[in-house]
Amino acid sequence: MKTLKIHRAAGYLRMPWKNGGGSTEEVTRNDGHGLDTFGWRVSIADIAASGEFSSFAGYQRVISVLQGYGMTLDVEGKRSRELLAFDAFAFDGGSQVSCNLLAGSIRNFNLIYSPKLYRARLQWFEGILPANVLTSAATVLVFSACDDLQVRIPGHPAQTLGIYDSLQLDDQQGLLKLVLTGRCCLIELTPA
Amino acid sequence: MKTLKIHRAAGYLRMPWKNGGGSTEEVTRNDGHGLDTFGWRVSIADIAASGEFSSFAGYQRVISVLQGYGMTLDVEGKRSRELLAFDAFAFDGGSQVSCNLLAGSIRNFNLIYSPKLYRARLQWFEGILPANVLTSAATVLVFSACDDLQVRIPGHPAQTLGIYDSLQLDDQQGLLKLVLTGRCCLIELTPA
Repeated sequence: MKTLKIHRAAGYLRMPWKNGGGSTEEVTRNDGHGLDTFGWRVSIADIAASGEFSSFAGYQRVISVLQGYGMTLDVEGKRSRELLAFDAFAFDGGSQVSCNLLAGSIRNFNLIYSPKLYRARLQWFEGILPANVLTSAATVLVFSACDDLQVRIPGHPAQTLGIYDSLQLDDQQGLLKLVLTGRCCLIELTPA
Repeated sequence: MKTLKIHRAAGYLRMPWKNGGGSTEEVTRNDGHGLDTFGWRVSIADIAASGEFSSFAGYQRVISVLQGYGMTLDVEGKRSRELLAFDAFAFDGGSQVSCNLLAGSIRNFNLIYSPKLYRARLQWFEGILPANVLTSAATVLVFSACDDLQVRIPGHPAQTLGIYDSLQLDDQQGLLKLVLTGRCCLIELTPA
């Protein structure tokens, strides 16, 4: 049975970083509780100063700036392009990574997942036009980056998400239609 | 090993419909040759008159108008919305389906696949802004609906596709970045 859940931003749990250098709000994850045992996890992190990232060996990471001017990442000594808002950047969680703020503090959006356990897909929508998607992913996660994201899924009530709210649909089977109106990130996950 | 193939529209094979009522140009398919044995197939069909569609029991279909004003489909007696250009519509291939032209002949774009064998995803991009996608699909297919679609995939030469040309990347592993600039359809397929 398909289960549609709405996660409101006000309810996200704030958790300290493994390396103590900041904190993260957890949006959602597959299951489990520790920081080393999850299959996938979606979170928001506030970064007030340049510095090292925690290591997540065996995981794939995708990071996007949500607020603030931007950053570069040094991944194993190689500098990324300038990462401004809503520009997703993928890197190996086991890499040595340091973050360089371009101009002041930022808020980031993070997907971390085990590529041995899951196939993942991530895409930002600017929200200029309604986006129509047909997907067969097992889990569909929509993360709002605007004040009034409209999410329409046939067979479910229409949903409005405020900023940083998210919608999660698990145990999805067959071809699902999604219509997204507003700026958002769509993450799709399927067991590998 | 990833294999990137470009299919030029001029080279598509034209094939008669199973019911004799029209013809189809095959863009690409997984493998095999008959019309009853494929796992997935992508094609273009020209429809000059309203009428019945062939049956493809056991398959999922997704159809989009490419040229012409549009159509409605009667699927098991239920009429669809008015389907204008680039509005993807999904239906069960085993349904009894008839097509009603709204105003003259049309050209359609079709995905047919076996949901027992594949998970599929389909999305049209308007091409107003470059689209950035991160995907783990095994097969990525980009179908151009403009004269100069730009496709950038790190690790591969940049490609320019003319109208109805397509690009196919098979045996993809890990998280792939795609940048698409121009109107196109992105189809992603992964064995179930």
